[in-house]
Formats: sequence, structure tokens, C-alpha cells
Amino acid sequence: MASKTVGVVGGMGPAATVEFLARLVRATRAARDEDHLHVLVDSDPRIPSRTAALLHGAPSPAPRLCAIAQTLERAGAEFLVMPCNTAHAFIDAMRGAVGIPILDMRAEAAALVGEGPVGLLATAAVVRAGVYDRVLRARGLALVSPPDADQNEVTALIAAVKAGEPLDGLRLRLRRIVVRLQEAGARTLVVGCTEISILHEPPPELPSVDALDALVEATVREAQDDAR
Amino acid sequence: MASKTVGVVGGMGPAATVEFLARLVRATRAARDEDHLHVLVDSDPRIPSRTAALLHGAPSPAPRLCAIAQTLERAGAEFLVMPCNTAHAFIDAMRGAVGIPILDMRAEAAALVGEGPVGLLATAAVVRAGVYDRVLRARGLALVSPPDADQNEVTALIAAVKAGEPLDGLRLRLRRIVVRLQEAGARTLVVGCTEISILHEPPPELPSVDALDALVEATVREAQDDAR
Repeated sequence: MASKTVGVVGGMGPAATVEFLARLVRATRAARDEDHLHVLVDSDPRIPSRTAALLHGAPSPAPRLCAIAQTLERAGAEFLVMPCNTAHAFIDAMRGAVGIPILDMRAEAAALVGEGPVGLLATAAVVRAGVYDRVLRARGLALVSPPDADQNEVTALIAAVKAGEPLDGLRLRLRRIVVRLQEAGARTLVVGCTEISILHEPPPELPSVDALDALVEATVREAQDDAR
Repeated sequence: MASKTVGVVGGMGPAATVEFLARLVRATRAARDEDHLHVLVDSDPRIPSRTAALLHGAPSPAPRLCAIAQTLERAGAEFLVMPCNTAHAFIDAMRGAVGIPILDMRAEAAALVGEGPVGLLATAAVVRAGVYDRVLRARGLALVSPPDADQNEVTALIAAVKAGEPLDGLRLRLRRIVVRLQEAGARTLVVGCTEISILHEPPPELPSVDALDALVEATVREAQDDAR
């Protein structure tokens, strides 16, 4: 079966991009190499900080993101994905820069939520700039964000994953935050940061939607869409 | 520190490419995203079979490999790596197709061997077409290949990894082959197939050089070469 070439706007961070690619290989039904998807990746760790731009008015990463999208399109990508939730704040500019579709990880995650309120694990930039607000509102879902102390802890955990710290101790710290989100009324957890996706182990008592998994599923579906 | 952009000729197979990228992230000293390497990847699982070309006269993958190398060069790669040992049979054609260097995984592995004879775990194509012979001869190292029955078992293990089979049972089968290579006189093991790299756990009693790790180290060294 012919399938579309996937372009991955990556490097935010590099480990999250590798995690996306690993899950994509596992999610593809394949007995041989040639059953897998053709994937082009630009893993550019020097894309300007999404958080610094959204929270502190630093220069926008949009021009660099647009340039990467164009590079991938020129190299043969037929649609794009971006395994970084925070970078989705700049998706509209990117869509204006290329002639191929860009999947929206937030919309793919929101579509899998059964009931709200939604407890959101994400960067402070995603929470404060409301990067998930529109897609959740479109589904009539209320949002529960961690209190400031816990949000700071989420930020510290993300930095620790990016720095390659051992995951086991970090997982314990994440679990405490999840318990408090549930106590604050969350009925579904949305893992809306790809570094947290690396850490998160779904708790048995709270339904959990990992945006990275949602993007993986959407990528396989879009690539193998035989209506082309 | 400025570092060179790496181009990865991938997809042979897709899981081995992801394993290379994961090891590359771990091998890079990095506290933040921007300390990591800029990596461009073309993971193309439909590159014609290297084994079929080398053993059965099927059409050569060289034209496709050259085209991928050129795509990566155009997209900005400053040197190329290819995490597939068998594909190195076609590296001369690729070097003629681009103006940037291509690291040789075989040479990087051979440079790390302490003493021979070398027990080689590789595809039947690598063994029969002598893909590793020149680099080992250049270092004065003799080669011990598995007997036919064991080589067939290696081939079956590679196919099983490509098909995504659970790794634990496969590891046990690999260990039996390693024991027999040692009995046949191998003093160092060279893991010369990236699917076997995914499986292999170095036995304590036999020094072991994983070509994939050798390529990872060479990639970091070449990218961060500040003599540029």
C-alpha cells in the first residue's frame, strides 16, 4: 500500500522526538522494513525557546519553525507533525508557510477525552498562553491546571528530562502532582508536554490521554489514508 | 559551541534508525535542548533490499541511497552517517554522489577491536559479500563467521527484530550463537548488524564492539569537531 511521507518538525526536545519516532515504529503494523512509514525528520535543538517567547517576549521561534517546515516540504514530506505541544502556539504561522497539511496534536488529544474537567500537564507557557484552551473549549471541556507550586514542579521535571536525569525519581514526583489534580476535580488527565509523555505512567484510577500517543495514531492514520 | 549538522541515511530498518538516534541523544553531553546535535533524518523503509542485491542479483539500492544522500545534503547536512552495516557495501557510490563526508561504521568499529580473531554477527550478505573484510584486514584481524546453521539463525533473528517480535526470547537464541563463536576461536565480538545491536547484551567473558555504538561515538566526535 502506498503511504504518504511524514515530515517531523523535531528537536523540541531531541529525546521527545526520538520517543515519538519509537512509538511510531511500534504503532505501525509491519512485518518487514517496507511496511513502515517513510519519515523525514529535522531535529533542530536550536529552535528559539517557545517558552521564552510566550512568557517573556523573547524573539519568536516562528521564522525558524516555518523554515524547517519548508525544508521538509522541499525534501518530499506530504504532511507535517510536530511532537512539541508548546510549539503549537505557532502552528498558524507555519500553516501559512507551506502547502501541505500540519496535524494538530492538541486537537488529536482533545478528541480522545471522554469527560471533563481536564487536568492538564504542560509547560507554564502552554498553561498561561492558553495553548490548549481553544481545542478543549471546542469540545465543551473545562480545564483544571496545577496550582503554582505544582506547575513549577512540572517545569522542573521537564527540564530534568531534557537534561537526561534518571526517570524513576522523577516519576514519583510527577505522581504526586497527578494525585492533587485529581483531588482538584480532574476527571481526565491530558499529558500535554512531550517530556512529560516520556515520564508519565497512566494511573489506574484516572483516565489519561497522552497527546504524544494521540499524535502517533493520527500520523499513522493520515499516512495510510488510502483516499489519496 | 557550533556543531555540524548530521544527516542520517535511515530506515534500514526503521527501529535500528530510532535506536541510533536514541543512543545519539544519550551520548551527547547536554543540559538543555540547544546542547544537542542538529540531526536531519531520512528514514526510508522502501530502499531496495541490500541483501537481495548482494546475494541474489536483485536491483541495487545504490541509486536510492545516492538520492537520499543528496536530499540530506541539500537540506543542510554537513556530513552523513548510515546506521546499517549491510548498506555500507554501497558507500563508494554514495561518496561519489555528494560533496560531504560519509562516516564508515565498519572502520569505526574495527578501530575499537583490541585483538582478533573477530567473531562477526552480521547479515548473510555482509558475511558472504565480505563487507567487513577490508576494514578488518587493514587492521590485521582474522575473521570467524558463524557456521551455516548459526548464520541462518542470525538471519531469522534480524527478521524477527524487524517484525517487532518481543526481544527476550530472541536474546536467548543470540546468546547461544555467541557461545559457539567463542568456542570457534573468536577473541572479540563485532556486532555488525544494527538489528542485532538492539538485541545484543555484551557477555561478560568476551570483549564486544557494537558497530552502532562506534558510529554514535564517531558522529558526536565529527559533529563537535571544533577544528572546523
